[in-house]
Amino acid sequence: MTSADHDAVLEANALFYAAFEDRNLMAMDAMWSADADIACVHPGWPPIRGRDDVMRSWKAVFENSDGVTPVCDGPTCQVHGDSAYVLCRERLDNAVLIATNLFVRRDGAWALVHRHSSPLARVPATPPIDPDFLPN
Amino acid sequence: MTSADHDAVLEANALFYAAFEDRNLMAMDAMWSADADIACVHPGWPPIRGRDDVMRSWKAVFENSDGVTPVCDGPTCQVHGDSAYVLCRERLDNAVLIATNLFVRRDGAWALVHRHSSPLARVPATPPIDPDFLPN
Repeated sequence: MTSADHDAVLEANALFYAAFEDRNLMAMDAMWSADADIACVHPGWPPIRGRDDVMRSWKAVFENSDGVTPVCDGPTCQVHGDSAYVLCRERLDNAVLIATNLFVRRDGAWALVHRHSSPLARVPATPPIDPDFLPN
Repeated sequence: MTSADHDAVLEANALFYAAFEDRNLMAMDAMWSADADIACVHPGWPPIRGRDDVMRSWKAVFENSDGVTPVCDGPTCQVHGDSAYVLCRERLDNAVLIATNLFVRRDGAWALVHRHSSPLARVPATPPIDPDFLPN
């Protein structure tokens, strides 16, 4: 992994959130790989598989989510050859989500192939882990 | 991607769930890459980053989760060079989770570098997507 790779992935990730915030379907489409087999897990929902259905889902998200879009917070990036993932928080007005955004390098550019976003629990019924090592 | 790669990733994924079911910390440790910068998102929790803390979290999960372990259902796999991810459902007695398990090839074997598991919502307050294309 080079520092340039790392920066380029974080830049692609930032462009993804910009497209999300702008509700710009063309920009969102451009962020995703042209591969037919991309997938997306919107918060709480079953996986959407396949490029056509993933893009239909973004169209529906943009039309139905009454202006609420997450702000990406604290993204970190790991690059493994021509694949990389970003792990970040997504802040809404009154909730925090955790997102994994998976990119692959296609013709020198980083394109999304999979995304998994899910809510951060506030008061878990059964804490599975020692709170001592829960990060911020 | 070769069919052999695909099968090997799904086999590694199955071994991960076997280690989970057996609460076998040594087997779980062996499933994860030796890389220091692995990460894990347990359902509803903030990301755990770093190999030591990820393994501490599994120890705590095994000690605290009163015997409930998810059954992997319907895994699908996408291989991108030396990286791959599995997307699957995780069935509990009365809940369904969605998991993204990210592997990299290390010395010919597939090892986990990141995992993100989260609950499937039952009755979302604001369906973001057209139910017509919600898979099973």
